Amino acid sequence: MKPIGVIRSPITDPDKAPQQGSESAVSGQLVVDEQYRDALLGLERGRKIVIVYWMHLAERDILQVHPRRDLSRPVRGVFSTRSPQRPNPVSIDTVEITGIEGTVIDVAGLDAVDGTPLLDIKCVP
Amino acid sequence: MKPIGVIRSPITDPDKAPQQGSESAVSGQLVVDEQYRDALLGLERGRKIVIVYWMHLAERDILQVHPRRDLSRPVRGVFSTRSPQRPNPVSIDTVEITGIEGTVIDVAGLDAVDGTPLLDIKCVP
Repeated sequence: MKPIGVIRSPITDPDKAPQQGSESAVSGQLVVDEQYRDALLGLERGRKIVIVYWMHLAERDILQVHPRRDLSRPVRGVFSTRSPQRPNPVSIDTVEITGIEGTVIDVAGLDAVDGTPLLDIKCVP
Repeated sequence: MKPIGVIRSPITDPDKAPQQGSESAVSGQLVVDEQYRDALLGLERGRKIVIVYWMHLAERDILQVHPRRDLSRPVRGVFSTRSPQRPNPVSIDTVEITGIEGTVIDVAGLDAVDGTPLLDIKCVP
Protein backbone atom coordinates (compact mmCIF):
# COMPACT_ATOMS: atom_id res chain seq x y z
CA MET A 1 0.00 0.00 0.00
CA LYS A 2 1.48 3.29 -1.10
CA PRO A 3 -0.23 6.68 -0.95
CA ILE A 4 -1.06 8.12 -4.40
CA GLY A 5 -1.36 11.61 -2.92
CA VAL A 6 -2.72 13.56 0.01
CA ILE A 7 -6.08 15.10 0.95
CA ARG A 8 -6.19 18.82 1.74
CA SER A 9 -9.21 19.62 3.87
CA PRO A 10 -10.34 22.37 6.27
CA ILE A 11 -11.03 19.64 8.86
CA THR A 12 -8.12 19.41 11.30
CA ASP A 13 -9.82 17.79 14.30
CA PRO A 14 -10.91 14.20 13.60
CA ASP A 15 -13.55 14.50 16.34
CA LYS A 16 -15.20 17.21 14.25
CA ALA A 17 -15.18 15.25 10.99
CA PRO A 18 -18.64 14.44 9.59
CA GLN A 19 -19.90 10.92 10.24
CA GLN A 20 -18.64 8.53 7.59
CA GLY A 21 -21.18 8.00 4.85
CA SER A 22 -23.07 11.16 5.71
CA GLU A 23 -23.66 14.03 3.33
CA SER A 24 -20.76 16.37 4.00
CA ALA A 25 -20.66 19.95 2.75
CA VAL A 26 -16.89 20.19 3.16
CA SER A 27 -14.76 21.14 0.15
CA GLY A 28 -11.06 20.42 -0.28
CA GLN A 29 -8.48 19.06 -2.66
CA LEU A 30 -7.01 15.75 -3.73
CA VAL A 31 -3.34 16.45 -4.41
CA VAL A 32 -2.28 13.49 -6.54
CA ASP A 33 1.41 12.67 -7.00
CA GLU A 34 2.76 13.76 -10.38
CA GLN A 35 3.77 10.17 -11.26
CA TYR A 36 0.05 9.23 -11.45
CA ARG A 37 -0.97 12.03 -13.84
CA ASP A 38 -1.80 9.55 -16.65
CA ALA A 39 -4.20 7.69 -14.34
CA LEU A 40 -6.43 10.79 -14.10
CA LEU A 41 -7.43 10.80 -17.80
CA GLY A 42 -11.22 10.97 -18.04
CA LEU A 43 -11.88 12.65 -14.71
CA GLU A 44 -13.75 15.89 -15.15
CA ARG A 45 -15.71 18.55 -13.34
CA GLY A 46 -19.21 17.51 -12.28
CA ARG A 47 -18.40 13.80 -12.02
CA LYS A 48 -18.78 11.90 -8.77
CA ILE A 49 -15.91 9.68 -7.69
CA VAL A 50 -15.23 7.22 -4.90
CA ILE A 51 -12.11 7.99 -2.90
CA VAL A 52 -10.31 5.49 -0.68
CA TYR A 53 -8.04 6.81 2.02
CA TRP A 54 -6.08 5.78 5.08
CA MET A 55 -7.39 7.23 8.37
CA HIS A 56 -3.90 7.70 9.75
CA LEU A 57 -5.12 9.05 13.11
CA ALA A 58 -7.39 6.06 13.87
CA GLU A 59 -6.65 3.47 16.53
CA ARG A 60 -6.23 0.00 15.06
CA ASP A 61 -6.56 -2.26 18.11
CA ILE A 62 -10.14 -1.37 19.07
CA LEU A 63 -12.61 -4.16 18.14
CA GLN A 64 -15.85 -2.84 19.68
CA VAL A 65 -17.35 0.65 19.91
CA HIS A 66 -20.55 2.48 20.83
CA PRO A 67 -22.11 3.30 17.42
CA ARG A 68 -21.82 6.98 16.51
CA ARG A 69 -19.92 7.53 19.78
CA ASP A 70 -23.27 7.42 21.61
CA LEU A 71 -22.56 5.85 25.01
CA SER A 72 -26.24 5.04 25.51
CA ARG A 73 -26.13 2.57 22.62
CA PRO A 74 -24.81 -0.94 23.25
CA VAL A 75 -21.34 -1.75 21.95
CA ARG A 76 -21.03 -3.32 18.54
CA GLY A 77 -18.16 -4.95 16.68
CA VAL A 78 -16.35 -2.41 14.51
CA PHE A 79 -17.10 -4.56 11.45
CA SER A 80 -20.82 -3.82 11.89
CA THR A 81 -20.21 -0.05 12.11
CA ARG A 82 -18.53 2.74 10.12
CA SER A 83 -16.24 3.66 13.03
CA PRO A 84 -12.78 4.94 11.98
CA GLN A 85 -11.39 2.60 14.65
CA ARG A 86 -10.74 -0.78 12.96
CA PRO A 87 -7.80 -3.08 12.17
CA ASN A 88 -7.29 -1.53 8.72
CA PRO A 89 -8.56 2.06 8.95
CA VAL A 90 -9.46 2.37 5.27
CA SER A 91 -12.27 4.81 4.54
CA ILE A 92 -14.50 5.09 1.50
CA ASP A 93 -16.25 8.30 0.53
CA THR A 94 -18.12 9.60 -2.51
CA VAL A 95 -17.24 13.17 -3.52
CA GLU A 96 -17.99 15.42 -6.48
CA ILE A 97 -15.29 16.92 -8.67
CA THR A 98 -15.66 20.71 -8.77
CA GLY A 99 -12.47 21.40 -10.71
CA ILE A 100 -9.17 19.91 -11.91
CA GLU A 101 -5.87 21.63 -12.58
CA GLY A 102 -2.95 19.35 -13.40
CA THR A 103 -2.94 16.68 -10.71
CA VAL A 104 -4.90 18.72 -8.17
CA ILE A 105 -8.60 17.85 -7.99
CA ASP A 106 -11.06 20.14 -6.20
CA VAL A 107 -13.83 18.14 -4.56
CA ALA A 108 -16.97 18.72 -2.50
CA GLY A 109 -18.37 16.32 0.09
CA LEU A 110 -15.24 15.43 2.08
CA ASP A 111 -15.16 13.66 5.45
CA ALA A 112 -11.37 13.41 5.77
CA VAL A 113 -9.01 15.46 7.92
CA ASP A 114 -6.23 17.54 6.41
CA GLY A 115 -3.12 15.54 5.53
CA THR A 116 -4.90 12.20 5.10
CA PRO A 117 -3.03 9.81 2.76
CA LEU A 118 -5.05 9.11 -0.41
CA LEU A 119 -4.94 5.49 -1.61
CA ASP A 120 -7.26 5.26 -4.60
CA ILE A 121 -9.81 7.00 -6.82
CA LYS A 122 -12.56 5.06 -8.64
CA CYS A 123 -15.53 5.99 -10.75
CA VAL A 124 -18.94 5.55 -9.12
CA PRO A 125 -20.42 2.21 -10.27
CA MET B 1 -2.27 -3.14 6.07
CA LYS B 2 -2.86 -6.61 7.41
CA PRO B 3 -5.46 -9.10 6.14
CA ILE B 4 -8.28 -9.76 8.62
CA GLY B 5 -9.15 -13.00 6.83
CA VAL B 6 -9.60 -14.57 3.43
CA ILE B 7 -12.41 -14.80 0.87
CA ARG B 8 -13.54 -18.26 -0.25
CA SER B 9 -15.24 -18.07 -3.63
CA PRO B 10 -16.03 -20.40 -6.55
CA ILE B 11 -14.31 -17.88 -8.87
CA THR B 12 -10.77 -19.01 -9.61
CA ASP B 13 -10.10 -17.18 -12.89
CA PRO B 14 -9.93 -13.39 -12.41
CA ASP B 15 -10.84 -12.91 -16.08
CA LYS B 16 -14.18 -14.57 -15.31
CA ALA B 17 -14.95 -12.45 -12.24
CA PRO B 18 -18.06 -10.26 -12.57
CA GLN B 19 -17.42 -6.59 -13.36
CA GLN B 20 -16.76 -4.60 -10.22
CA GLY B 21 -19.87 -2.87 -8.98
CA SER B 22 -22.18 -5.15 -10.92
CA GLU B 23 -24.85 -7.33 -9.39
CA SER B 24 -23.12 -10.68 -8.88
CA ALA B 25 -24.99 -13.87 -8.08
CA VAL B 26 -21.88 -15.59 -6.70
CA SER B 27 -21.97 -16.97 -3.16
CA GLY B 28 -18.97 -17.67 -0.96
CA GLN B 29 -17.53 -17.15 2.49
CA LEU B 30 -15.60 -14.57 4.45
CA VAL B 31 -13.28 -16.55 6.72
CA VAL B 32 -12.30 -14.02 9.39
CA ASP B 33 -9.28 -14.62 11.60
CA GLU B 34 -10.21 -15.80 15.09
CA GLN B 35 -8.46 -12.80 16.70
CA TYR B 36 -11.15 -10.50 15.22
CA ARG B 37 -14.16 -12.44 16.54
CA ASP B 38 -15.21 -9.57 18.85
CA ALA B 39 -15.31 -7.17 15.89
CA LEU B 40 -18.16 -9.19 14.31
CA LEU B 41 -20.68 -8.45 17.08
CA GLY B 42 -23.89 -7.14 15.48
CA LEU B 43 -23.49 -8.77 12.07
CA GLU B 44 -26.42 -11.01 11.26
CA ARG B 45 -28.12 -12.88 8.46
CA GLY B 46 -29.99 -10.70 5.98
CA ARG B 47 -27.83 -7.61 6.53
CA LYS B 48 -25.87 -6.04 3.71
CA ILE B 49 -22.24 -5.20 4.33
CA VAL B 50 -19.44 -3.49 2.46
CA ILE B 51 -16.30 -5.58 2.12
CA VAL B 52 -12.87 -4.20 1.28
CA TYR B 53 -10.30 -6.55 -0.15
CA TRP B 54 -6.90 -6.65 -1.81
CA MET B 55 -6.94 -7.81 -5.45
CA HIS B 56 -3.69 -9.72 -5.06
CA LEU B 57 -3.58 -10.82 -8.72
CA ALA B 58 -3.89 -7.29 -10.15
CA GLU B 59 -1.06 -5.46 -11.87
CA ARG B 60 -0.09 -2.27 -10.06
CA ASP B 61 1.94 -0.39 -12.66
CA ILE B 62 -0.79 0.08 -15.28
CA LEU B 63 -2.14 3.65 -15.34
CA GLN B 64 -4.50 3.54 -18.36
CA VAL B 65 -6.91 0.88 -19.61
CA HIS B 66 -9.73 0.32 -22.09
CA PRO B 67 -12.87 0.52 -19.91
CA ARG B 68 -14.50 -2.89 -19.34
CA ARG B 69 -11.66 -4.45 -21.38
CA ASP B 70 -13.43 -3.26 -24.55
CA LEU B 71 -10.65 -2.43 -27.04
CA SER B 72 -13.05 -0.32 -29.13
CA ARG B 73 -13.38 2.18 -26.29
CA PRO B 74 -10.67 4.83 -25.90
CA VAL B 75 -8.20 4.39 -23.03
CA ARG B 76 -8.95 6.07 -19.74
CA GLY B 77 -6.95 6.64 -16.60
CA VAL B 78 -7.49 3.85 -14.10
CA PHE B 79 -8.72 6.41 -11.55
CA SER B 80 -11.75 7.11 -13.78
CA THR B 81 -12.60 3.38 -14.05
CA ARG B 82 -13.26 0.37 -11.79
CA SER B 83 -10.41 -1.64 -13.35
CA PRO B 84 -8.66 -4.03 -10.94
CA GLN B 85 -5.40 -2.68 -12.38
CA ARG B 86 -4.39 0.34 -10.25
CA PRO B 87 -1.55 1.43 -7.95
CA ASN B 88 -3.37 0.16 -4.83
CA PRO B 89 -5.63 -2.69 -5.98
CA VAL B 90 -8.20 -2.27 -3.23
CA SER B 91 -11.71 -3.36 -4.16
CA ILE B 92 -15.03 -2.44 -2.58
CA ASP B 93 -18.10 -4.63 -2.89
CA THR B 94 -21.51 -4.81 -1.24
CA VAL B 95 -22.65 -8.31 -0.30
CA GLU B 96 -25.50 -9.81 1.70
CA ILE B 97 -24.97 -12.00 4.74
CA THR B 98 -26.75 -15.34 4.27
CA GLY B 99 -25.40 -17.00 7.42
CA ILE B 100 -22.78 -16.77 10.18
CA GLU B 101 -21.12 -19.52 12.16
CA GLY B 102 -18.32 -18.46 14.48
CA THR B 103 -16.01 -16.28 12.40
CA VAL B 104 -17.15 -17.67 9.04
CA ILE B 105 -19.68 -15.47 7.22
CA ASP B 106 -21.66 -16.82 4.25
CA VAL B 107 -22.32 -14.09 1.71
CA ALA B 108 -24.06 -13.63 -1.63
CA GLY B 109 -23.04 -11.16 -4.34
CA LEU B 110 -19.29 -11.73 -4.50
CA ASP B 111 -16.94 -10.47 -7.23
CA ALA B 112 -13.68 -11.72 -5.69
CA VAL B 113 -11.57 -14.72 -6.66
CA ASP B 114 -10.87 -17.54 -4.23
CA GLY B 115 -8.06 -16.79 -1.79
CA THR B 116 -8.41 -12.99 -1.92
CA PRO B 117 -7.12 -11.29 1.26
CA LEU B 118 -9.95 -9.56 3.15
CA LEU B 119 -9.04 -6.14 4.62
CA ASP B 120 -12.22 -4.75 6.16
CA ILE B 121 -15.96 -5.16 6.72
CA LYS B 122 -18.25 -2.14 7.22
CA CYS B 123 -21.98 -1.65 7.56
CA VAL B 124 -23.74 -0.12 4.57
CA PRO B 125 -24.18 3.64 5.23
